[in-house]
Amino acid sequence: MPVITLEGPSIPDPAKRRKMVDALTSAAAGAYGLPKEKIIILIRENAPDQVAVGGVLLTDRT
Amino acid sequence: MPVITLEGPSIPDPAKRRKMVDALTSAAAGAYGLPKEKIIILIRENAPDQVAVGGVLLTDRT
Amino acid sequence: MPVITLEGPSIPDPAKRRKMVDALTSAAAGAYGLPKEKIIILIRENAPDQVAVGGVLLTDRT
Amino acid sequence: MPVITLEGPSIPDPAKRRKMVDALTSAAAGAYGLPKEKIIILIRENAPDQVAVGGVLLTDRT
Amino acid sequence: MPVITLEGPSIPDPAKRRKMVDALTSAAAGAYGLPKEKIIILIRENAPDQVAVGGVLLTDRT
Amino acid sequence: MPVITLEGPSIPDPAKRRKMVDALTSAAAGAYGLPKEKIIILIRENAPDQVAVGGVLLTDRT
Repeated sequence: MPVITLEGPSIPDPAKRRKMVDALTSAAAGAYGLPKEKIIILIRENAPDQVAVGGVLLTDRT
Repeated sequence: MPVITLEGPSIPDPAKRRKMVDALTSAAAGAYGLPKEKIIILIRENAPDQVAVGGVLLTDRT
Repeated sequence: MPVITLEGPSIPDPAKRRKMVDALTSAAAGAYGLPKEKIIILIRENAPDQVAVGGVLLTDRT
Repeated sequence: MPVITLEGPSIPDPAKRRKMVDALTSAAAGAYGLPKEKIIILIRENAPDQVAVGGVLLTDRT
Repeated sequence: MPVITLEGPSIPDPAKRRKMVDALTSAAAGAYGLPKEKIIILIRENAPDQVAVGGVLLTDRT
Repeated sequence: MPVITLEGPSIPDPAKRRKMVDALTSAAAGAYGLPKEKIIILIRENAPDQVAVGGVLLTDRT
Protein backbone atom coordinates (compact mmCIF):
# COMPACT_ATOMS: atom_id res chain seq x y z
CA MET A 1 0.00 0.00 0.00
CA PRO A 2 2.52 2.65 -1.03
CA VAL A 3 1.61 6.22 -0.18
CA ILE A 4 2.93 9.14 -2.24
CA THR A 5 2.74 12.62 -0.72
CA LEU A 6 3.30 15.76 -2.76
CA GLU A 7 4.06 19.08 -1.11
CA GLY A 8 4.02 22.00 -3.53
CA PRO A 9 2.18 25.02 -4.80
CA SER A 10 -1.44 24.81 -5.88
CA ILE A 11 -2.24 23.09 -9.21
CA PRO A 12 -5.47 24.87 -10.10
CA ASP A 13 -6.10 23.13 -13.45
CA PRO A 14 -8.00 19.88 -12.77
CA ALA A 15 -6.82 18.39 -16.07
CA LYS A 16 -3.18 18.79 -14.99
CA ARG A 17 -3.94 17.21 -11.63
CA ARG A 18 -5.62 14.24 -13.27
CA LYS A 19 -2.76 13.70 -15.68
CA MET A 20 -0.21 14.04 -12.89
CA VAL A 21 -1.77 11.57 -10.47
CA ASP A 22 -2.18 9.04 -13.25
CA ALA A 23 1.47 9.36 -14.31
CA LEU A 24 2.75 9.22 -10.72
CA THR A 25 0.64 6.14 -10.03
CA SER A 26 1.87 4.32 -13.14
CA ALA A 27 5.50 5.09 -12.31
CA ALA A 28 5.16 3.88 -8.73
CA ALA A 29 3.11 0.78 -9.61
CA GLY A 30 5.78 -0.25 -12.11
CA ALA A 31 8.63 0.18 -9.64
CA TYR A 32 6.89 -1.61 -6.77
CA GLY A 33 5.44 -4.33 -9.00
CA LEU A 34 1.96 -3.65 -7.66
CA PRO A 35 -1.39 -2.96 -9.35
CA LYS A 36 -2.25 0.72 -9.71
CA GLU A 37 -5.17 0.32 -7.28
CA LYS A 38 -2.66 -0.14 -4.44
CA ILE A 39 -1.10 3.33 -4.87
CA ILE A 40 -2.45 6.21 -2.77
CA ILE A 41 -1.56 9.84 -3.50
CA LEU A 42 -2.00 12.77 -1.12
CA ILE A 43 -1.55 16.29 -2.50
CA ARG A 44 -0.72 19.13 -0.11
CA GLU A 45 -0.82 22.70 -1.28
CA ASN A 46 1.39 25.10 0.60
CA ALA A 47 0.67 28.82 0.61
CA PRO A 48 3.68 31.02 -0.32
CA ASP A 49 3.88 32.38 3.21
CA GLN A 50 4.25 28.83 4.54
CA VAL A 51 7.35 27.96 2.52
CA ALA A 52 10.88 29.32 2.79
CA VAL A 53 13.96 28.65 0.68
CA GLY A 54 17.35 29.92 1.77
CA GLY A 55 15.82 31.41 4.92
CA VAL A 56 13.41 33.66 3.00
CA LEU A 57 9.63 33.15 2.77
CA LEU A 58 8.43 32.76 -0.84
CA THR A 59 6.23 35.83 -0.32
CA ASP A 60 9.36 37.89 0.36
CA ARG A 61 11.34 36.78 -2.66
CA THR A 62 11.63 39.35 -5.39
CA MET B 1 6.93 11.97 22.96
CA PRO B 2 5.23 9.84 20.31
CA VAL B 3 3.42 11.71 17.57
CA ILE B 4 0.45 10.16 15.74
CA THR B 5 -0.61 11.74 12.45
CA LEU B 6 -3.90 10.90 10.78
CA GLU B 7 -4.54 11.68 7.12
CA GLY B 8 -8.11 11.13 6.05
CA PRO B 9 -11.42 12.69 5.16
CA SER B 10 -13.07 15.22 7.43
CA ILE B 11 -14.70 13.97 10.66
CA PRO B 12 -17.35 16.64 11.17
CA ASP B 13 -18.92 15.22 14.34
CA PRO B 14 -16.96 16.53 17.37
CA ALA B 15 -18.14 13.63 19.52
CA LYS B 16 -16.58 11.14 17.10
CA ARG B 17 -13.34 13.10 17.06
CA ARG B 18 -13.19 13.17 20.84
CA LYS B 19 -13.85 9.45 21.13
CA MET B 20 -11.29 8.67 18.42
CA VAL B 21 -8.41 10.68 19.87
CA ASP B 22 -9.02 9.20 23.28
CA ALA B 23 -8.99 5.64 21.93
CA LEU B 24 -5.90 6.26 19.78
CA THR B 25 -4.09 7.77 22.73
CA SER B 26 -4.92 4.88 25.05
CA ALA B 27 -3.79 2.32 22.47
CA ALA B 28 -0.47 4.10 21.85
CA ALA B 29 0.21 4.82 25.52
CA GLY B 30 -0.27 1.15 26.32
CA ALA B 31 2.06 -0.04 23.57
CA TYR B 32 4.81 2.49 24.35
CA GLY B 33 4.45 2.12 28.12
CA LEU B 34 4.06 5.88 28.49
CA PRO B 35 1.48 8.06 30.24
CA LYS B 36 -1.29 9.35 27.97
CA GLU B 37 -0.05 12.91 28.44
CA LYS B 38 3.00 12.07 26.32
CA ILE B 39 0.98 11.21 23.21
CA ILE B 40 0.39 13.93 20.61
CA ILE B 41 -2.14 13.53 17.79
CA LEU B 42 -2.31 15.62 14.62
CA ILE B 43 -5.38 15.26 12.39
CA ARG B 44 -5.13 16.25 8.73
CA GLU B 45 -8.21 16.48 6.62
CA ASN B 46 -7.70 15.98 2.91
CA ALA B 47 -10.18 17.35 0.40
CA PRO B 48 -11.41 14.76 -2.16
CA ASP B 49 -9.56 16.57 -4.97
CA GLN B 50 -6.31 16.18 -3.04
CA VAL B 51 -6.41 12.39 -2.80
CA ALA B 52 -6.06 9.77 -5.53
CA VAL B 53 -6.38 6.00 -5.37
CA GLY B 54 -5.42 3.88 -8.35
CA GLY B 55 -4.43 6.99 -10.31
CA VAL B 56 -7.89 8.57 -10.05
CA LEU B 57 -8.80 11.57 -7.88
CA LEU B 58 -11.55 10.82 -5.36
CA THR B 59 -13.67 13.55 -6.98
CA ASP B 60 -13.56 11.60 -10.26
CA ARG B 61 -14.58 8.24 -8.86
CA THR B 62 -18.09 7.17 -9.61
CA MET C 1 -7.98 5.36 2.56
CA PRO C 2 -6.92 7.00 5.81
CA VAL C 3 -3.25 6.70 6.69
CA ILE C 4 -2.08 6.74 10.32
CA THR C 5 1.61 7.39 10.98
CA LEU C 6 3.21 6.78 14.36
CA GLU C 7 6.54 8.30 15.30
CA GLY C 8 7.96 7.00 18.55
CA PRO C 9 10.46 4.77 20.25
CA SER C 10 10.81 1.13 19.28
CA ILE C 11 8.09 -1.31 20.40
CA PRO C 12 10.09 -4.53 20.55
CA ASP C 13 7.29 -6.83 21.76
CA PRO C 14 5.38 -8.11 18.71
CA ALA C 15 2.30 -8.84 20.82
CA LYS C 16 2.11 -5.18 21.88
CA ARG C 17 2.48 -4.06 18.28
CA ARG C 18 -0.29 -6.36 17.13
CA LYS C 19 -2.64 -5.21 19.86
CA MET C 20 -1.82 -1.56 19.18
CA VAL C 21 -2.39 -1.62 15.42
CA ASP C 22 -5.67 -3.44 15.91
CA ALA C 23 -6.90 -0.90 18.47
CA LEU C 24 -5.75 2.08 16.36
CA THR C 25 -7.47 0.65 13.31
CA SER C 26 -10.75 0.05 15.14
CA ALA C 27 -10.75 3.57 16.57
CA ALA C 28 -10.08 5.17 13.19
CA ALA C 29 -12.51 2.97 11.28
CA GLY C 30 -15.27 3.90 13.73
CA ALA C 31 -14.61 7.63 13.46
CA TYR C 32 -14.35 7.68 9.66
CA GLY C 33 -17.24 5.26 9.18
CA LEU C 34 -15.09 3.03 7.00
CA PRO C 35 -14.32 -0.71 7.08
CA LYS C 36 -11.11 -1.61 8.90
CA GLU C 37 -9.56 -2.82 5.65
CA LYS C 38 -9.35 0.81 4.48
CA ILE C 39 -7.06 1.90 7.32
CA ILE C 40 -3.28 1.89 6.73
CA ILE C 41 -0.78 2.25 9.58
CA LEU C 42 2.89 3.15 9.23
CA ILE C 43 5.14 2.81 12.30
CA ARG C 44 8.37 4.79 12.44
CA GLU C 45 10.90 4.08 15.13
CA ASN C 46 13.16 6.96 16.04
CA ALA C 47 16.53 6.36 17.69
CA PRO C 48 17.12 8.41 20.87
CA ASP C 49 19.82 10.45 19.13
CA GLN C 50 17.30 11.47 16.48
CA VAL C 51 14.77 13.02 18.86
CA ALA C 52 15.05 16.17 20.96
CA VAL C 53 12.67 17.66 23.51
CA GLY C 54 13.28 21.12 24.92
CA GLY C 55 16.37 21.48 22.77
CA VAL C 56 18.11 18.42 24.26
CA LEU C 57 18.64 15.09 22.47
CA LEU C 58 17.04 12.15 24.31
CA THR C 59 20.49 10.57 24.57
CA ASP C 60 21.65 13.59 26.58
CA ARG C 61 18.80 13.64 29.07
CA THR C 62 19.60 12.43 32.54
CA MET D 1 18.44 19.44 -0.04
CA PRO D 2 17.33 19.19 3.59
CA VAL D 3 13.65 19.80 4.24
CA ILE D 4 12.44 21.15 7.60
CA THR D 5 8.75 20.78 8.40
CA LEU D 6 7.11 22.62 11.28
CA GLU D 7 3.76 21.56 12.69
CA GLY D 8 2.33 23.99 15.19
CA PRO D 9 -0.20 26.69 15.90
CA SER D 10 -0.54 29.70 13.62
CA ILE D 11 2.18 32.38 13.77
CA PRO D 12 0.17 35.41 12.68
CA ASP D 13 2.96 38.01 12.96
CA PRO D 14 4.92 38.04 9.67
CA ALA D 15 7.98 39.52 11.39
CA LYS D 16 8.16 36.54 13.74
CA ARG D 17 7.82 34.14 10.83
CA ARG D 18 10.62 35.83 8.93
CA LYS D 19 12.92 35.80 11.92
CA MET D 20 12.11 32.17 12.66
CA VAL D 21 12.71 30.80 9.17
CA ASP D 22 16.00 32.67 8.97
CA ALA D 23 17.19 31.30 12.31
CA LEU D 24 16.06 27.74 11.49
CA THR D 25 17.82 27.91 8.14
CA SER D 26 21.08 29.16 9.63
CA ALA D 27 21.05 26.45 12.29
CA ALA D 28 20.41 23.68 9.77
CA ALA D 29 22.88 25.00 7.19
CA GLY D 30 25.60 25.07 9.83
CA ALA D 31 24.92 21.52 10.99
CA TYR D 32 24.72 20.05 7.48
CA GLY D 33 27.62 22.10 6.15
CA LEU D 34 25.49 23.35 3.27
CA PRO D 35 24.74 26.83 1.93
CA LYS D 36 21.50 28.35 3.25
CA GLU D 37 20.00 28.23 -0.26
CA LYS D 38 19.79 24.43 0.04
CA ILE D 39 17.46 24.50 3.06
CA ILE D 40 13.70 24.28 2.46
CA ILE D 41 11.16 25.01 5.21
CA LEU D 42 7.49 24.04 5.17
CA ILE D 43 5.22 25.52 7.85
CA ARG D 44 1.97 23.74 8.71
CA GLU D 45 -0.58 25.39 10.90
CA ASN D 46 -2.86 23.07 12.80
CA ALA D 47 -6.25 24.24 14.05
CA PRO D 48 -6.89 23.53 17.77
CA ASP D 49 -9.56 20.99 16.90
CA GLN D 50 -7.02 19.05 14.85
CA VAL D 51 -4.53 18.51 17.67
CA ALA D 52 -4.84 16.39 20.80
CA VAL D 53 -2.49 15.98 23.75
CA GLY D 54 -3.12 13.31 26.36
CA GLY D 55 -6.19 12.16 24.48
CA VAL D 56 -7.95 15.54 24.67
CA LEU D 57 -8.45 17.95 21.75
CA LEU D 58 -6.86 21.37 22.35
CA THR D 59 -10.31 22.93 21.98
CA ASP D 60 -11.50 20.88 24.96
CA ARG D 61 -8.69 21.77 27.32
CA THR D 62 -9.55 24.18 30.05
CA MET E 1 10.54 23.44 -4.56
CA PRO E 2 7.99 20.64 -4.52
CA VAL E 3 8.86 17.65 -2.36
CA ILE E 4 7.56 14.16 -3.19
CA THR E 5 7.72 11.53 -0.46
CA LEU E 6 7.19 7.84 -1.17
CA GLU E 7 6.39 5.37 1.59
CA GLY E 8 6.45 1.77 0.47
CA PRO E 9 8.30 -1.51 0.44
CA SER E 10 11.93 -1.70 -0.59
CA ILE E 11 12.77 -1.36 -4.29
CA PRO E 12 16.01 -3.34 -4.43
CA ASP E 13 16.68 -2.99 -8.17
CA PRO E 14 18.59 0.26 -8.76
CA ALA E 15 17.44 0.39 -12.38
CA LYS E 16 13.80 0.44 -11.29
CA ARG E 17 14.52 3.16 -8.76
CA ARG E 18 16.22 5.29 -11.38
CA LYS E 19 13.40 4.88 -13.84
CA MET E 20 10.80 5.60 -11.17
CA VAL E 21 12.34 8.81 -9.85
CA ASP E 22 12.79 10.10 -13.37
CA ALA E 23 9.17 9.41 -14.27
CA LEU E 24 7.85 10.89 -11.01
CA THR E 25 9.95 14.00 -11.52
CA SER E 26 8.77 14.51 -15.09
CA ALA E 27 5.13 14.10 -14.08
CA ALA E 28 5.42 16.58 -11.22
CA ALA E 29 7.49 19.11 -13.18
CA GLY E 30 4.86 19.12 -15.92
CA ALA E 31 1.98 19.65 -13.51
CA TYR E 32 3.68 22.40 -11.50
CA GLY E 33 5.17 24.08 -14.59
CA LEU E 34 8.63 23.96 -13.03
CA PRO E 35 12.00 22.69 -14.28
CA LYS E 36 12.84 19.13 -13.20
CA GLU E 37 15.73 20.44 -11.09
CA LYS E 38 13.21 21.93 -8.65
CA ILE E 39 11.64 18.55 -7.78
CA ILE E 40 12.95 16.69 -4.72
CA ILE E 41 12.07 13.05 -4.04
CA LEU E 42 12.45 11.25 -0.72
CA ILE E 43 12.02 7.45 -0.68
CA ARG E 44 11.14 5.72 2.58
CA GLU E 45 11.27 1.99 2.84
CA ASN E 46 9.03 0.46 5.47
CA ALA E 47 9.75 -2.99 6.90
CA PRO E 48 6.75 -5.38 6.82
CA ASP E 49 6.51 -5.30 10.61
CA GLN E 50 6.13 -1.52 10.48
CA VAL E 51 3.05 -1.48 8.25
CA ALA E 52 -0.48 -2.65 8.98
CA VAL E 53 -3.53 -2.83 6.74
CA GLY E 54 -6.94 -3.60 8.19
CA GLY E 55 -5.46 -3.80 11.67
CA VAL E 56 -3.01 -6.60 10.78
CA LEU E 57 0.76 -6.22 10.40
CA LEU E 58 2.02 -7.21 6.94
CA THR E 59 4.20 -9.85 8.62
CA ASP E 60 1.05 -11.49 9.99
CA ARG E 61 -0.87 -11.61 6.74
CA THR E 62 -1.14 -14.98 5.14
CA MET F 1 3.34 21.05 21.18
CA PRO F 2 5.02 22.04 17.92
CA VAL F 3 6.86 19.26 16.12
CA ILE F 4 9.85 20.02 13.87
CA THR F 5 10.94 17.31 11.45
CA LEU F 6 14.26 17.46 9.61
CA GLU F 7 14.92 15.35 6.54
CA GLY F 8 18.51 15.46 5.39
CA PRO F 9 21.83 13.70 5.18
CA SER F 10 23.44 12.21 8.27
CA ILE F 11 25.03 14.60 10.80
CA PRO F 12 27.67 12.31 12.30
CA ASP F 13 29.22 14.84 14.72
CA PRO F 14 27.21 14.75 17.99
CA ALA F 15 28.38 18.26 18.91
CA LYS F 16 26.86 19.65 15.70
CA ARG F 17 23.61 17.81 16.36
CA ARG F 18 23.41 19.20 19.88
CA LYS F 19 24.07 22.73 18.75
CA MET F 20 21.56 22.42 15.93
CA VAL F 21 18.65 21.10 18.00
CA ASP F 22 19.22 23.77 20.60
CA ALA F 23 19.23 26.55 18.00
CA LEU F 24 16.17 25.17 16.21
CA THR F 25 14.31 24.88 19.49
CA SER F 26 15.12 28.43 20.55
CA ALA F 27 14.03 29.81 17.19
CA ALA F 28 10.73 27.94 17.25
CA ALA F 29 10.01 28.66 20.92
CA GLY F 30 10.48 32.37 20.28
CA ALA F 31 8.18 32.40 17.26
CA TYR F 32 5.41 30.36 18.90
CA GLY F 33 5.73 32.13 22.26
CA LEU F 34 6.10 28.79 24.03
CA PRO F 35 8.67 27.44 26.50
CA LYS F 36 11.45 25.40 24.90
CA GLU F 37 10.20 22.26 26.68
CA LYS F 38 7.16 22.25 24.37
CA ILE F 39 9.23 21.87 21.18
CA ILE F 40 9.84 18.36 19.80
CA ILE F 41 12.41 17.67 17.07
CA LEU F 42 12.60 14.54 14.93
CA ILE F 43 15.70 14.03 12.76
CA ARG F 44 15.47 11.73 9.75
CA GLU F 45 18.59 10.73 7.91
CA ASN F 46 18.11 9.79 4.30
CA ALA F 47 20.62 7.58 2.49
CA PRO F 48 21.87 9.01 -0.83
CA ASP F 49 20.06 6.28 -2.77
CA GLN F 50 16.78 7.36 -1.16
CA VAL F 51 16.89 10.96 -2.37
CA ALA F 52 16.60 12.35 -5.88
CA VAL F 53 16.91 15.90 -7.16
CA GLY F 54 15.99 16.74 -10.74
CA GLY F 55 15.03 13.13 -11.38
CA VAL F 56 18.48 11.76 -10.50
CA LEU F 57 19.34 9.79 -7.36
CA LEU F 58 22.06 11.47 -5.27
CA THR F 59 24.20 8.33 -5.71
CA ASP F 60 24.14 8.91 -9.47
CA ARG F 61 25.15 12.56 -9.43
CA THR F 62 28.67 13.29 -10.48
